[in-house]
Amino acid sequence: MARGGARLTGEEFAGLPVAVDAMGGDQAPDQIVAGARRVAAETDIRVTLVGRPGEMGDTGDLACIPASEVIGMDDDPGQAVRRKKDSSLVRAAEAVRDGRAMAMVSAGNTGATMASALLRMGRLPGVLRPAIATPIPNPGGPWPTVLLDSGANAECSAAMLVQFAQMGAAFAQKRYGIDRPRVALLSIGEEKSKGTPLEKETHALLEAGDGGEGLTFVGNVEGRDFFDGKTDVIVTDGFTGNVALKTLEGSMRFLIGALTDILGRPDVRHAADALTPHLLPLAHALDPENTGGAMLLGVDGVCVISHGSSSAVAIVNAITVAHDLAVGGLVGAVADAVTPAATPA
Amino acid sequence: MARGGARLTGEEFAGLPVAVDAMGGDQAPDQIVAGARRVAAETDIRVTLVGRPGEMGDTGDLACIPASEVIGMDDDPGQAVRRKKDSSLVRAAEAVRDGRAMAMVSAGNTGATMASALLRMGRLPGVLRPAIATPIPNPGGPWPTVLLDSGANAECSAAMLVQFAQMGAAFAQKRYGIDRPRVALLSIGEEKSKGTPLEKETHALLEAGDGGEGLTFVGNVEGRDFFDGKTDVIVTDGFTGNVALKTLEGSMRFLIGALTDILGRPDVRHAADALTPHLLPLAHALDPENTGGAMLLGVDGVCVISHGSSSAVAIVNAITVAHDLAVGGLVGAVADAVTPAATPA
Repeated sequence: MARGGARLTGEEFAGLPVAVDAMGGDQAPDQIVAGARRVAAETDIRVTLVGRPGEMGDTGDLACIPASEVIGMDDDPGQAVRRKKDSSLVRAAEAVRDGRAMAMVSAGNTGATMASALLRMGRLPGVLRPAIATPIPNPGGPWPTVLLDSGANAECSAAMLVQFAQMGAAFAQKRYGIDRPRVALLSIGEEKSKGTPLEKETHALLEAGDGGEGLTFVGNVEGRDFFDGKTDVIVTDGFTGNVALKTLEGSMRFLIGALTDILGRPDVRHAADALTPHLLPLAHALDPENTGGAMLLGVDGVCVISHGSSSAVAIVNAITVAHDLAVGGLVGAVADAVTPAATPA
Repeated sequence: MARGGARLTGEEFAGLPVAVDAMGGDQAPDQIVAGARRVAAETDIRVTLVGRPGEMGDTGDLACIPASEVIGMDDDPGQAVRRKKDSSLVRAAEAVRDGRAMAMVSAGNTGATMASALLRMGRLPGVLRPAIATPIPNPGGPWPTVLLDSGANAECSAAMLVQFAQMGAAFAQKRYGIDRPRVALLSIGEEKSKGTPLEKETHALLEAGDGGEGLTFVGNVEGRDFFDGKTDVIVTDGFTGNVALKTLEGSMRFLIGALTDILGRPDVRHAADALTPHLLPLAHALDPENTGGAMLLGVDGVCVISHGSSSAVAIVNAITVAHDLAVGGLVGAVADAVTPAATPA
């Protein structure tokens, strides 16, 4: 079924497969195909692999969409998507656009994934810019905290940030079942006078209710507040969001690495053995492999952006999330949440 | 000796005390005074306390500069410094300006500390804006990584960031004895095309040598690179720097808290006891109490900004660093490093 603005509802997706880019990611295609096969074997979710025939290894019973080209992790996103029209990323996005898939998943080049989704699926009506929403694991709380934009748009306007707030709330509601997600603005102090003109203007708009009646704006939060459960959604521009996300990931990786090193020392082996069952739940809760990946919001289709290092486990989670949100009507919810911009960007 | 542009050299500082704001910080005055007394008792460094007579507790043999007012942690910095002319912060900055102290240290209101130093000591000639340089502990490397600006200026120009690079390199050289500090720009990708126009312009200026012959620019780094030893100085605007610093602190505090919780469980007591000697060096290396605090660079005097939560240990380190950098000629080195701006801000 052609889409062309006539969005499928959640129910119409039933029976369509999730299109998985088999060629994208540091561990592609092996781990990607392994994850896709596991989902198909263990659930009712249908999966279609998109990639180079003959290079995907043993794909089992999975359906495949052939694509002769691959966009590399270091390729320039805009150029690559324009030139490699028969790449797995572009073909996966086209499958969603054409109603042959309910959603797409890729662990490949993030910029090229965004560009493919944006150019092939298109923006939702009234959306100024799509944004990447990344779940930040929050082991102390009932669900992760959603950070957006975590890297799609280095430069943002206040009107864009208001839409990010709306899209992020719709995502948190659909993804985690939060009735009225609390939305906060990332700044350098709780007072509305803190930050650059962008934060001050965005704060004023959200406080004045420009986010709409359904939006619960709880004010500014700071970088130290990612784990304190004060809010469900944190809104910022894509430059700051990307720096914060990578700083979080880097500090966690550093500290977990230092601990792993200590626990591996021969003279503490018994202590390490005793602690492991206590540490595993924390490690599991913090592992980005288990969040299901980031989501590109504001395009006319479900697009999950998995971490470049995704293993089969991460791909299983990403496909499951993509399926659940497509069937659950994420795209319609995002479209309904956004107040169309007065002047298109 | 009056300063008025005729900066004291390092040697002329010899014998002058470090002025310590006894009233600023979450644990003031007890922990501040305790730290000051410890330095005076155990080293040759002279210390003068600045604060409310009768409210500082037992100050022992320490000299005191009386100040009748206190600037609170939540006071508006600009207003407080203008109105509370007899506050401990303002009096401490005046002591440096007037040549009665070699440096000042405060764990109080960061904005008011900056404003006091800026208004009383003044900017160094040619400096567009002072910046806060914060050492990020780097347990895997020989010295911390210096992040600036970590919060003084929410909005910055590329010319300001070039000066931050110069000031940060001078600080890293004086503080850690690094011969040619490597300076990087914080962005969202290593390529020079990544980031907002601010990062692109700053990258171009630094690459073209606008930082001066002595500056070693190593390109862009990302938020994940704080602990990998790729660089000695990381330059960014004060908004991004503050978000990154607080994100780092928050994620470390969260993870260390979760671990402390696990290690406190009764059934792992023996394991915890066995691991403690291994964990302590890491905890010590990461503890901001041990870095000596942040430094306000670009003003005509040494001003150490300690963390609001500073204990006596942090104050001991802050006073020691303030003394060493004053005697070591930090202010002159910063003044020499900065290329005067063509147009004052």
